[in-house]
Amino acid sequence: MTLQYDGTAYNGWQVQPTGITVQGLLEEGIGRITGERVQVVGAGRTDTGVHALGQVASFDSSSSLDIPVIKRGVNALLPADLRILEASETAADFHPRYGALRKRYFYLIANCEVLPVFIGRYVWWIRNPLDLEGMRRAAGFMRGSRDFSSFRGAGCGAKSPVREVYSIETEMLEGMEMFFTRISGSFIRISIEANGFLRHMVRNIVGTFVEVGTGRKNPEAVGEILEARDRRLAGPTAPAKGLFLEKIFYASS
Amino acid sequence: MTLQYDGTAYNGWQVQPTGITVQGLLEEGIGRITGERVQVVGAGRTDTGVHALGQVASFDSSSSLDIPVIKRGVNALLPADLRILEASETAADFHPRYGALRKRYFYLIANCEVLPVFIGRYVWWIRNPLDLEGMRRAAGFMRGSRDFSSFRGAGCGAKSPVREVYSIETEMLEGMEMFFTRISGSFIRISIEANGFLRHMVRNIVGTFVEVGTGRKNPEAVGEILEARDRRLAGPTAPAKGLFLEKIFYASS
Repeated sequence: MTLQYDGTAYNGWQVQPTGITVQGLLEEGIGRITGERVQVVGAGRTDTGVHALGQVASFDSSSSLDIPVIKRGVNALLPADLRILEASETAADFHPRYGALRKRYFYLIANCEVLPVFIGRYVWWIRNPLDLEGMRRAAGFMRGSRDFSSFRGAGCGAKSPVREVYSIETEMLEGMEMFFTRISGSFIRISIEANGFLRHMVRNIVGTFVEVGTGRKNPEAVGEILEARDRRLAGPTAPAKGLFLEKIFYASS
Repeated sequence: MTLQYDGTAYNGWQVQPTGITVQGLLEEGIGRITGERVQVVGAGRTDTGVHALGQVASFDSSSSLDIPVIKRGVNALLPADLRILEASETAADFHPRYGALRKRYFYLIANCEVLPVFIGRYVWWIRNPLDLEGMRRAAGFMRGSRDFSSFRGAGCGAKSPVREVYSIETEMLEGMEMFFTRISGSFIRISIEANGFLRHMVRNIVGTFVEVGTGRKNPEAVGEILEARDRRLAGPTAPAKGLFLEKIFYASS
């Protein structure tokens, strides 16, 4: 399944003892349609409040229902902020997480005087103008295979802190298209594609870039922070609401 | 003031005995910043759940505070779904409603298999493909100065049911730009510019067009419905969530 969700209302992807989760709602909905008890495995275990444009997830089923019927039925049961976009049968050994070659996240900042009301839930609003060139120079230190311990959130369960960042882009646009209309404001989008991500890695990187953008840190300091492998040196964790899981890449896609 | 709001959480523009209204929040916020008791007059009294991209409103004040200070202070007090975009001093005899020459509303329909999650609160979702050509033919009957009694909502306080529609456009786009990305889906936008609007006029027109789009009514029947001046003949009122007050036109703008 390819999934889209507005993460505002969710306690993240993974089923928790308390709170509503994306995985939990999917398992419940699929269970009601197929009559089976299923376990849904997601490619990226997004945190509380994080959104997804292209999450990938799968489950095992021996239901005789056609896939479009399951998709339509489950979508009708889900709340309006979570939808299955596409669903298809996979090879029996397909695993959304272990099979993923690369993932791309992006982070949105609204860098303008007035918070844009129609996308307020999808951006980190920063009023004072950020130094985009400085942020781009800071981003240069992130490319390649590196030890990201300085940007690793507490409680991260990964065995290795090394990840390979294939690309990191910092774009700025004046205005955003929406409703076939241009919404005014300056927007910054930071996109990161890597073979995997540590806990809070994108948000810790963005929080550090913003410290560069506001002049609190030099761009060059970011290279030193990365080398130091010390979380205490990097910037604060950027808010979850600006983060989107954009796309998961597989060998066949 | 030029205002933007996501109307989802509001009991419309106008102060009511119960419920939170846009006018009420503005009067409260301005009151707290200027220390005055003000009355805010809006150009369009949008209904419960209706959004605004360019509402215009004004108030009288003898505060010595600079306008940018008032704007920033009030914005800091308002909830994230309501913002003053611009504020300036006007002539003493300016009246947002009486001074308006024309207003433009648009209505958004998501006409696709799966509800688009990121703009679910801003569209009427209709799954089955609509006949756009039929809807455009129906729209042809609406242009010019006409008696819109058939599209007038109950409780409308206007003296005359005659309004002049300057333009009505029905556009369809595949995908919508958002987050610097294309969100998939088919979207229909119906834009109406007129010298004024009766209560529920846009939503009743859209509800009728959708009956044409689904084949329940002939495009030509819409001309007859208009002629009949009988609300019972037109279609149902389209949901408020798809409606946007886009722009108010004044002699000087």
